[in-house]
Amino acid sequence: DFKAALDEVPPAFGVSENELQQCVQNHVLNFDDGVETILTDGNLFVEQVRNSTRTQVVSILLHGAANSGKTALAATIAMKSQFPFIKLISPEAMIGFSESNKINHINKIFNDAYKSPLSVIVLDNIERIMEWIDIGPRFSNGVLQALLVLLKRKPPKDRRLLIIATTSQRGMLSSMQLDDAFDSEFKVPMISRVETVGFVLEQLNMFSDEEREYALQRLHKKNLDGRFEIGIKKLLMIVEVASQSTNKVEKFVQAISATQVPGLGADNAAFQRYT
Amino acid sequence: DFKAALDEVPPAFGVSENELQQCVQNHVLNFDDGVETILTDGNLFVEQVRNSTRTQVVSILLHGAANSGKTALAATIAMKSQFPFIKLISPEAMIGFSESNKINHINKIFNDAYKSPLSVIVLDNIERIMEWIDIGPRFSNGVLQALLVLLKRKPPKDRRLLIIATTSQRGMLSSMQLDDAFDSEFKVPMISRVETVGFVLEQLNMFSDEEREYALQRLHKKNLDGRFEIGIKKLLMIVEVASQSTNKVEKFVQAISATQVPGLGADNAAFQRYT
Amino acid sequence: DFKAALDEVPPAFGVSENELQQCVQNHVLNFDDGVETILTDGNLFVEQVRNSTRTQVVSILLHGAANSGKTALAATIAMKSQFPFIKLISPEAMIGFSESNKINHINKIFNDAYKSPLSVIVLDNIERIMEWIDIGPRFSNGVLQALLVLLKRKPPKDRRLLIIATTSQRGMLSSMQLDDAFDSEFKVPMISRVETVGFVLEQLNMFSDEEREYALQRLHKKNLDGRFEIGIKKLLMIVEVASQSTNKVEKFVQAISATQVPGLGADNAAFQRYT
Amino acid sequence: DFKAALDEVPPAFGVSENELQQCVQNHVLNFDDGVETILTDGNLFVEQVRNSTRTQVVSILLHGAANSGKTALAATIAMKSQFPFIKLISPEAMIGFSESNKINHINKIFNDAYKSPLSVIVLDNIERIMEWIDIGPRFSNGVLQALLVLLKRKPPKDRRLLIIATTSQRGMLSSMQLDDAFDSEFKVPMISRVETVGFVLEQLNMFSDEEREYALQRLHKKNLDGRFEIGIKKLLMIVEVASQSTNKVEKFVQAISATQVPGLGADNAAFQRYT
Amino acid sequence: DFKAALDEVPPAFGVSENELQQCVQNHVLNFDDGVETILTDGNLFVEQVRNSTRTQVVSILLHGAANSGKTALAATIAMKSQFPFIKLISPEAMIGFSESNKINHINKIFNDAYKSPLSVIVLDNIERIMEWIDIGPRFSNGVLQALLVLLKRKPPKDRRLLIIATTSQRGMLSSMQLDDAFDSEFKVPMISRVETVGFVLEQLNMFSDEEREYALQRLHKKNLDGRFEIGIKKLLMIVEVASQSTNKVEKFVQAISATQVPGLGADNAAFQRYT
Amino acid sequence: DFKAALDEVPPAFGVSENELQQCVQNHVLNFDDGVETILTDGNLFVEQVRNSTRTQVVSILLHGAANSGKTALAATIAMKSQFPFIKLISPEAMIGFSESNKINHINKIFNDAYKSPLSVIVLDNIERIMEWIDIGPRFSNGVLQALLVLLKRKPPKDRRLLIIATTSQRGMLSSMQLDDAFDSEFKVPMISRVETVGFVLEQLNMFSDEEREYALQRLHKKNLDGRFEIGIKKLLMIVEVASQSTNKVEKFVQAISATQVPGLGADNAAFQRYT
Ligand SMILES: Nc1ncnc2c1ncn2[C@@H]1O[C@H](COP(=O)(O)OP(=O)(O)OP(=O)(O)O)[C@@H](O)[C@H]1O
Ligand SMILES: Nc1ncnc2c1ncn2[C@@H]1O[C@H](COP(=O)(O)OP(=O)(O)OP(=O)(O)O)[C@@H](O)[C@H]1O
Ligand SMILES: Nc1ncnc2c1ncn2[C@@H]1O[C@H](COP(=O)(O)OP(=O)(O)OP(=O)(O)O)[C@@H](O)[C@H]1O
Ligand SMILES: Nc1ncnc2c1ncn2[C@@H]1O[C@H](COP(=O)(O)OP(=O)(O)OP(=O)(O)O)[C@@H](O)[C@H]1O
Ligand SMILES: Nc1ncnc2c1ncn2[C@@H]1O[C@H](COP(=O)(O)OP(=O)(O)OP(=O)(O)O)[C@@H](O)[C@H]1O
Ligand SMILES: Nc1ncnc2c1ncn2[C@@H]1O[C@H](COP(=O)(O)OP(=O)(O)OP(=O)(O)O)[C@@H](O)[C@H]1O
Ligand SMILES: [Mg+2]
Ligand SMILES: [Mg+2]
Ligand SMILES: [Mg+2]
Ligand SMILES: [Mg+2]
Ligand SMILES: [Mg+2]
Ligand SMILES: [Mg+2]
Repeated sequence: DFKAALDEVPPAFGVSENELQQCVQNHVLNFDDGVETILTDGNLFVEQVRNSTRTQVVSILLHGAANSGKTALAATIAMKSQFPFIKLISPEAMIGFSESNKINHINKIFNDAYKSPLSVIVLDNIERIMEWIDIGPRFSNGVLQALLVLLKRKPPKDRRLLIIATTSQRGMLSSMQLDDAFDSEFKVPMISRVETVGFVLEQLNMFSDEEREYALQRLHKKNLDGRFEIGIKKLLMIVEVASQSTNKVEKFVQAISATQVPGLGADNAAFQRYT
Repeated sequence: DFKAALDEVPPAFGVSENELQQCVQNHVLNFDDGVETILTDGNLFVEQVRNSTRTQVVSILLHGAANSGKTALAATIAMKSQFPFIKLISPEAMIGFSESNKINHINKIFNDAYKSPLSVIVLDNIERIMEWIDIGPRFSNGVLQALLVLLKRKPPKDRRLLIIATTSQRGMLSSMQLDDAFDSEFKVPMISRVETVGFVLEQLNMFSDEEREYALQRLHKKNLDGRFEIGIKKLLMIVEVASQSTNKVEKFVQAISATQVPGLGADNAAFQRYT
Repeated sequence: DFKAALDEVPPAFGVSENELQQCVQNHVLNFDDGVETILTDGNLFVEQVRNSTRTQVVSILLHGAANSGKTALAATIAMKSQFPFIKLISPEAMIGFSESNKINHINKIFNDAYKSPLSVIVLDNIERIMEWIDIGPRFSNGVLQALLVLLKRKPPKDRRLLIIATTSQRGMLSSMQLDDAFDSEFKVPMISRVETVGFVLEQLNMFSDEEREYALQRLHKKNLDGRFEIGIKKLLMIVEVASQSTNKVEKFVQAISATQVPGLGADNAAFQRYT
Repeated sequence: DFKAALDEVPPAFGVSENELQQCVQNHVLNFDDGVETILTDGNLFVEQVRNSTRTQVVSILLHGAANSGKTALAATIAMKSQFPFIKLISPEAMIGFSESNKINHINKIFNDAYKSPLSVIVLDNIERIMEWIDIGPRFSNGVLQALLVLLKRKPPKDRRLLIIATTSQRGMLSSMQLDDAFDSEFKVPMISRVETVGFVLEQLNMFSDEEREYALQRLHKKNLDGRFEIGIKKLLMIVEVASQSTNKVEKFVQAISATQVPGLGADNAAFQRYT
Repeated sequence: DFKAALDEVPPAFGVSENELQQCVQNHVLNFDDGVETILTDGNLFVEQVRNSTRTQVVSILLHGAANSGKTALAATIAMKSQFPFIKLISPEAMIGFSESNKINHINKIFNDAYKSPLSVIVLDNIERIMEWIDIGPRFSNGVLQALLVLLKRKPPKDRRLLIIATTSQRGMLSSMQLDDAFDSEFKVPMISRVETVGFVLEQLNMFSDEEREYALQRLHKKNLDGRFEIGIKKLLMIVEVASQSTNKVEKFVQAISATQVPGLGADNAAFQRYT
Repeated sequence: DFKAALDEVPPAFGVSENELQQCVQNHVLNFDDGVETILTDGNLFVEQVRNSTRTQVVSILLHGAANSGKTALAATIAMKSQFPFIKLISPEAMIGFSESNKINHINKIFNDAYKSPLSVIVLDNIERIMEWIDIGPRFSNGVLQALLVLLKRKPPKDRRLLIIATTSQRGMLSSMQLDDAFDSEFKVPMISRVETVGFVLEQLNMFSDEEREYALQRLHKKNLDGRFEIGIKKLLMIVEVASQSTNKVEKFVQAISATQVPGLGADNAAFQRYT
């Protein structure tokens, strides 16, 4: 039961709990080995930062398609650490900031972190933080340079910091020398099996058992198993939209079908797409 | 009778009613299944926002050629919702604003919306809001980034928001990662059948029945059925210009002819052009 | 007699009469059917604006080569309307303005117009207003965006506006989405027939009848009919320069010859060049 | 005798006489038919401006290679006019000006001119005034746009203005629509005949007759006639540098040789290079 | 024993000792001839600056891959000099600085150095100092120009200065004329032999002798000798991460394997990669 | 003896003597005919400026590879003139200046020069003054335009000015129209003969005669004559570095070898490389 699992995550005593809590509003469903791995390994990095004497700053990157659940996972790892300082840096808090305001805002959060013996900073949506767009491309070089430096800057003695960044633009990082800047990176999985959809439906409790069974049957019949691709966030929305309709199952199946990816085979789907 | 239909839309009790009312000054004629669909489905999204407990923000996009009636449709859906907060964000209110003024203006309207339990924001003409032009291309990256973030930003608890955006530049959205940002999108139809023109003429009551009949006959004779393409806004103007002339029908037929699209067949017109 | 024709245009009671009067200082000679059409059709649009109940803003574009007489024609149509508000927006009044000053200046004139029940705005030389140059190209995107919005912005209720714009850079408009923004456009004709030159000379009264006859004879002999191309403004200047010389006719013929266009045939000249 | 000719140019009673006087410090030698033509025709334009009733502004352009004597010729025509307002606009007076300072400075001089019934403005070195460089290219679009407008702006009633511009970058004008802006243009000639060199040497009186004869002989022997190309300003400098040396003639011949242009034939030199 | 070696480096009496000390927090292990050379030759340059009468400013460059140990080596050489003025210029101290702030900050440190008879300045991470990124590329030309000048600017009489710069972007220097600006340059070596790994493990004392032996055995078995490539900084981190795990050796071997470079042969590895 | 030669250069009574003196701190060794020519011809230009009545401003350019001795030669010519106003414009004095500060600084020095009857201005390192870099390329167009104007601006009556500029980027000048702006230019030679090295060693007196002989022998044996290329400034440094070593000659020979240019033949070296 995923709810129980979540209860293991008591509120951190850090600064921006509300914001982070809001990121996992719909909880984190353990629908996939990939999700499990990210949470477990994420925890290992938390422990390393807690115990290490030599490495003062560790940074990890969660990347994946839009709606795949990156922010929720990052927030979960951060909150689980129960470090005294936990803070979210997100583009939503910086709308309309000038470049230098952004840099100062970010820099200040890092400096605040250095005052706590143990800290986590979640850098959510780094492509948006640096105002990146693939036309040109354009981006704030000032913010990028600040991040490049901050990701490697050593905290003062006896202060340790874990940085968890998220992005849906893994590709842009290489040309920006940003990928070298992370100590480890994880790919957040998409959902492409009917079985996984079934698991999610079960957890959500918004379909009756018959409805669910019927929906899965329909998906299998349409031979969709392994041929679609949907982020957990989008799946949650589809379930809800469908629930509003009188024709629940049909609307649901239709919406899943719309995420079908041409050329995505049933078996090697994930591999083909993500390497 | 379209007038009756319109009477179903009592004034919303929101903020920028005047502005929105002005957008549908000439009412919305139900000339096409496409129009029907947009209004119906639009309404479904309104209901989802009204009832949902999980999805706090939903965004839809109306795109179509210039003069196709995008703004009027968006305004109609918005006003019909009768949500307590309904607001128009349009380039006309931001002439001469600096980039940061624009961002602040837009951001403020979103923040205002977050204060109402249920809100609709109409983002009219997003290509003009971000000062986009296909030479370069040039556009305000600052405004684009703000929109990218605002379209996905979660309102505070118990606040829900519907965003209806319009654009005549659907093509530019992909390269801007803006299409992923919308939950659903609709194409606003153009008029290309003589029959539809007849329907509009009838509703408008500016031609006598004979004049109308004669006009349609002329259009059919010129073999124009399915071979022209005109937006409802332009059609309304043509009717009026022609009405000023002593030679009403002739002027009208001539103007419709001028919108003929070479290579547009009678049957598959809409499909050929819009896929 | 063109003077009589002009007397039909009594001074408008609008704001920038002086400026506009100056634009037609040398009056408008009815040398060509094209000129006639522009004046007549221009008047029709004036009437539509005056009478319409639905269309509140109408915009037309006069385009043509340098010196073809665009500004004089636009000013003539505007003054003839005798609308209570008539105003010229020209680059000459905005030398040294910053981009935002320009936009404010233009916006203010539109807002002033909205206060009058009936208004005409002449947007002279739009390529210069937006500081356009075909190297790059460069232009003020801010001004362009303002124009794009202003050309379509609806005046408040019961206010109607006619916009007459001129440009010698018709080509640049498409890439700027500016051509869609106009409801109608007219090409201002150049002079390329010896006969037209004769008409202009006659009206101007600066050559004796013999001189004129001799000049036309010479032009015909040089087989120039239909093979040259000259704007009315340049023609007026050439007449005057030649008049200063002791060798009037010779200088005149020489100057006309200099405007010869290689490959321009006598018959299809206008068509070949302007499509 | 060129000195006598110069004495025909009494000081104008205008504003920036000193500056202009300095431009023709070394007088203007009538070494070529081209020079003669420029001065005569320049004078005709002066007369037209003086007498015309219709054309209030006339603009001419002197273009030619560096050191060809453009500024001196422009200044000479301007001073000879004896118009009550004569003013030089040159990049030397605007070093370090911001773009808007430049535009204001230029605009102010034009506005001052409009206060005098008859004026001449010399726009020296327009490529430098607009900070043009052929890398990019880069230039001040603001200054260019101001010039484009000012060259065509009509002075107030009863005020007339002659504009004389110079440039060594004739090529750049077309892409800037600046060539259309001038009513007439003249090419300032270079020196490429030994005979012309002889004429200049004679006028300058710095070589004895024997020295001059010997120098010309040497140049002919080296078969240089028509194969070199030198501006009058550079020629004057070479004469002076050579005069400082003990080996006058040799140094002089050597310097002339250095300006030899490969592939420049004796007869069609000027044509080949300048068309 | 590397600890003993380190004790030879008593604290300098200069200005930014803390910062520099922090750079070599984990000491410098003499794991390679290349390291030895850099330290020895670096010392020679220190001596030259100390003794020279003619050369007042000497600059050297340490370049190498990320994590190769550049900063630690530069700091070590600097501190060993015991010059009265030792200062670090690093991007970390300039986050959020404007371009002119950066230039002033850097210039001030150089000017301070000129006040001491003997000085060392460590310019750490010059690509970051000039905000360089290989998209465009973009960089602060102002900072680059300042560095180009400062690297060659002569101190006042009797003042001598050693500049030690580091970069991981050796390639970008040529196009920036920055490589000519250094008097000497050194490549900081990566680790690619199992034997070197063994040496480092031994020095660090975090593995028991058996663990170490077993780890090396495993690396040899996997035929990794000469086929991987790892910076000393990363190696130190890997050791520590592995130590946190219950499965120390396995985790360690796995992490080393991950740095394997395809196509890197055992014998000529270093040569193939670095020339 | 070069020291004696130098004594012929008594201190000028001008303004920035200290700065200039510092540029020739190590004196100027007459190691090459090219050096001789530059000093002699430079002097001729000094004399021309002193005596001329017509040419008020003369400008010369010294260009050559980095370290070839350009600044020292320019300073030497300037100081030898003993003109009452001698001033150095160098990038070192303008670090961190904004573009307009630079232009004002430069312009002011020129204006100061115009107050003295005879002046020399040394414009050292013009590529650095205009912040030129060959990526883009980028440079300060404002500074470039100011230089283009200042190099040709006539001083007031009875004031004369010699401008000596240096650059190591001769190639960039053409595209900037800067080469036409100079009246004469000189290439500063590099050293590529063993014999010249011998001459320099002898003058410097830092090697014993045996050491020198042995060094030259070694260079010949390595067949380096005419195959290397080194600037005098670098050669002076190499001598000094080598002198610090116990293995003087060996270090010296090694350093010279490092400057070997592949494909540079012994005989036509200088020609091949520098034309
Ligand atoms: N295993 C899971 N991993 C992540 N999120 C989950 C999981 N199970 C359920 N969720 C829910 O799914 C949603 C994921 O949304 P989230 O904002 O994290 O996605 P995202 O990838 O960051 O989206 P975006 O690309 O817009 O940034 C959250 O509401 C979260 O509670
Ligand atoms: N079915 C309809 N859909 C939309 N508009 C309609 C319809 N029937 C009538 N109209 C009228 O047509 C006009 C449509 O104009 P509208 O401004 O909405 O077009 P638009 O596509 O937004 O134009 P633009 O491309 O200039 O933004 C309005 O006056 C509206 O009242
Ligand atoms: N039929 C005509 N149409 C236009 N102008 C005419 C006509 N007959 C005479 N004119 C005179 O010709 C001149 C035309 O000049 P105008 O400034 O309008 O040309 P333009 O095309 O706007 O030039 P530009 O390209 O410089 O803007 C005016 O002086 C006008 O009085
Ligand atoms: N026929 C002539 N035409 C022009 N200048 C002449 C003539 N005869 C003698 N001169 C002298 O030659 C010099 C020409 O210099 P001027 O500055 O006018 O050349 P320029 O072409 O403007 O040079 P630049 O390309 O540097 O602007 C002046 O000193 C002038 O007195
Ligand atoms: N031989 C060595 N050379 C350099 N550093 C060493 C050496 N031995 C141990 N170290 C340790 O390795 C680490 C090297 O990190 P350092 O920051 O100098 O690397 P870097 O190349 O500057 O990294 P970056 O590319 O991030 O700038 C330091 O902690 C240092 O104490
Ligand atoms: N013949 C010579 N010419 C020039 N410099 C000489 C000569 N003989 C000795 N020197 C000495 O060589 C050094 C030349 O350095 P200088 O700074 O002039 O070179 P540079 O070419 O300007 O270098 P950079 O390319 O860095 O600007 C000076 O110290 C000078 O005293
Ligand atoms: Mg997210
Ligand atoms: Mg619209
Ligand atoms: Mg005009
Ligand atoms: Mg000139
Ligand atoms: Mg480092
Ligand atoms: Mg130098």
